[in-house]
Amino acid sequence: MRRTVLPLLAGLAFFAPPFAAGAQETREFPSQHGDVLVETLAAGLEHPWSVEVLPDGGYIVSERAGRLRIIRDGKASAPVAGVPEVAEQGQGGLLDIALAPDFATSRTLYLTLAATGDGGFGTALVRATLAADDKSLTDVKELFRMNRLTRKGQHFGSRIAFAPDGSLFFGIGDRGDRDRAQDLHDHAGAILHINPDGSIPAANPYRGGTEGLPEIWSKGHRNPQGIATDPEDGTLLTVEHGARGGDEINNPQPGHNYGWPVITYGKDYSGAEIGEGTAKDGFDQPLYYWDPSIAPGALAVYRGKMFPEWDGSLLVAALKYQLLARLERDDTGAVIAEERLFDGEFGRIRDVIVAPDGALLMVTDEEDGALLRVSKAPTQ
Amino acid sequence: MRRTVLPLLAGLAFFAPPFAAGAQETREFPSQHGDVLVETLAAGLEHPWSVEVLPDGGYIVSERAGRLRIIRDGKASAPVAGVPEVAEQGQGGLLDIALAPDFATSRTLYLTLAATGDGGFGTALVRATLAADDKSLTDVKELFRMNRLTRKGQHFGSRIAFAPDGSLFFGIGDRGDRDRAQDLHDHAGAILHINPDGSIPAANPYRGGTEGLPEIWSKGHRNPQGIATDPEDGTLLTVEHGARGGDEINNPQPGHNYGWPVITYGKDYSGAEIGEGTAKDGFDQPLYYWDPSIAPGALAVYRGKMFPEWDGSLLVAALKYQLLARLERDDTGAVIAEERLFDGEFGRIRDVIVAPDGALLMVTDEEDGALLRVSKAPTQ
Repeated sequence: MRRTVLPLLAGLAFFAPPFAAGAQETREFPSQHGDVLVETLAAGLEHPWSVEVLPDGGYIVSERAGRLRIIRDGKASAPVAGVPEVAEQGQGGLLDIALAPDFATSRTLYLTLAATGDGGFGTALVRATLAADDKSLTDVKELFRMNRLTRKGQHFGSRIAFAPDGSLFFGIGDRGDRDRAQDLHDHAGAILHINPDGSIPAANPYRGGTEGLPEIWSKGHRNPQGIATDPEDGTLLTVEHGARGGDEINNPQPGHNYGWPVITYGKDYSGAEIGEGTAKDGFDQPLYYWDPSIAPGALAVYRGKMFPEWDGSLLVAALKYQLLARLERDDTGAVIAEERLFDGEFGRIRDVIVAPDGALLMVTDEEDGALLRVSKAPTQ
Repeated sequence: MRRTVLPLLAGLAFFAPPFAAGAQETREFPSQHGDVLVETLAAGLEHPWSVEVLPDGGYIVSERAGRLRIIRDGKASAPVAGVPEVAEQGQGGLLDIALAPDFATSRTLYLTLAATGDGGFGTALVRATLAADDKSLTDVKELFRMNRLTRKGQHFGSRIAFAPDGSLFFGIGDRGDRDRAQDLHDHAGAILHINPDGSIPAANPYRGGTEGLPEIWSKGHRNPQGIATDPEDGTLLTVEHGARGGDEINNPQPGHNYGWPVITYGKDYSGAEIGEGTAKDGFDQPLYYWDPSIAPGALAVYRGKMFPEWDGSLLVAALKYQLLARLERDDTGAVIAEERLFDGEFGRIRDVIVAPDGALLMVTDEEDGALLRVSKAPTQ
C-alpha cells in the first residue's frame, strides 16, 4: 500500500537543477481520509527535539545536545550562537522551542532545557531574542527554573504552549521520583503556568505561595511531554508518558490533580502494580489513555486548512511505537476513532506541529534525525 | 506473556475423574486490568453464531446450518427438534438466540434466521417455546419477515436486544444492495423494533406505515450485526460491519439515519470512494468507528460484577481481526481507551455476551468452533 514517489516536480527533474543536499525523497502513504505525502525536508540532524516555522518559511530546530539550527532549502545552518549551556544528561538537554506570538516583530522565542545547578539538573525556561541574521540569540534571560535539582536523568518534560492571553503553559515530569508529582511545593510532575515576563498569572491556584508553588497549574503528571492549546478556543491539552502503560491525554484544570502515582492506568516496568488503582476521589480521569504505551513526545490540535477532515483531531507523536496517532473527535470533544500513521517508517517521532499552511512538521529523535513535512497527496 | 495453565483443580487431577470430552485447557492472558482466564467450555461446534445461558447454568448455542444445541458439562446435546428450516446461503442460516426476560417461567425464546420465500431469502424473527426437557421447540411462530427477498447471501444482520419494556430491537443489513439502506419502505439496512407479540410499538417513528415501514426504528445501516441495550439505563447501542473500513458503533434514535451508503468512513473493497464523504446534514455520526475494519460480529455492554474495572465498557467481538475489542468509557459515555484482547488466539469471534456471574461467553465462528468463557484470573 505504500509507494515511493518522487517530489512533485520529478517530471521536470531532467531540466531542473539538482535538489539541495538534504532535500530527500517524498513518500506516499494511505490514510483514512486519503493519501498523504511525507517529504524529508532535512536529514542529518542529531536528536532533534523541536521544530518551529519562521515567518519567512524557514525552520528553526533544536538538537538535544544544545544546538539551534535554521533550516532553509534543505540545508541546516551552523549552530545559532548564544544558546545557554544545557545539561545533556539522560533525557535532558536542549528541549522545546516556542516562538512568541509576536515573533515576526519582536524576534522573541522561549526555550526549555535541562539546566545544571546546586544538587544536579532541572528543567528551566529561557526567553531570548533571535538576531535579525538568525545567527545568534541575544537578551537571554532565564524566566523559570524548577526547584529540587537532582542528578537523575529522567522526566524533564517539557513543551511550551501559549494561552490566548500570551501566557505560557509548560510541563515538567516527576524527575524519576514518583512522589514528587504529589507535592504541591515541588515543581516536578506538574503543569506550570507563567506570564511572558516570568511573573505569576492571576488564574494560578497557588499564586499566594502558601498552599503550593505559585507557578503550579496542576499536579499528578508523570512526564507531560506534549502540550497544546486548541487554536479554536484555547482549551489546554497535555499528553504524558506513562510507565508500562498509562500514557494519558488530559485537559488540565487549575488546582486539579491527575493522579500519578496514586492512580494510573500503567504498571511498573517490572509488572508490579503502582498506587491504588485507576480511579479515586480527588483525582481526575484522563480524556484518553493508551495501554500499552505508545510513548508520546508531543501533541498538537489540528485546526489547519489542508486536512479539513482532521479538524479538531489530536495529533500525538510517538517515540517507542514510532508513529503519529490521530485521535478523531466529535463536536463534544469525545474521541470517536484512533488512526495510526507511519508506523515504524521514520523512527522515533519526537515533535509534531501544524504549520501555517496546514501541513504537519515532525522531527525524528534519532542520531541521524530528520525534519519531515506531511501534506495532502494531490488527487489523481 | 501468555501461559497455558491447567484448570484450577489440576493439582487434584490424579485423584479426580478425567475431564468430560470438550472441557479443554484454560489459558491465561494479560489485560489492562489484570490477567484473565479463557476456558474452552466446548469444542467441535460447527460455525456457532450465538450463545445464551439457561437458568440452570447450561448453555444454548446456535449453529449456522440450522441447529440449536444445549451444552452442559462440556458436552453438546443432539440438535433440538423443531427449529424452523433455514436458508444456509452465504452469510445466512440460523443466527441469533435471545431468551425472553421471563424465560425461566415462560421458556420463551426468539431466533433470527435467513428464511426462504418468494424471490429468495431474507431475515426473519421467530418466537418459540423450549420444551422442559430442552429437546424440542414448540409453539413456533414467525413474528416478522423482511420484505424484498433476494438471492444474495450478504448482510442478514442480525442480533436481538430487549428494551426495558420487553420490546425487541434487531438489525438487518443491506442484503448486498447498498441503496436499500436508504429506502424507508425497505426493511434492509435498518434497526427494527417490535413488541414481543410482533405488534408495532407506539415509539416507532413510521408506525402509521405511510412515510416508512412500521417496524423501522432507524435506517442507513450497512450490516448491523451487534446490538445491545445497556442493563443500567436501557441505552440502545449497535455495531455494524463496514466495507473496507468504517465499522461503526451507533446509538440509534427513532427516525434517524446513520448514513450508509451516502456517508461512510469506509471505502469500497476496490479502494473506490463510496457516497459523498464522511459527514452530511441529516445523517448521524457514529459514536466510534474503526478503519481498517475489525469486522464486528456482536456487541455487549459490560455491567457485571466480575470485572468492576470494565463497568460500562463496550465489548465487540471481531471476526476478521479475531479479537475482542474493549472500549472503555467515561461517565459521559465517551470512549477513553481501546483494548484489544486475544488477538488471533481463538479464531473468528462471532458472539460475546455477559453471563449472569459477570464472566464473558464467546463463540468462535469456525468449522471447529468453540464456546469460550472469559473470567478473572485469581490473584497470586
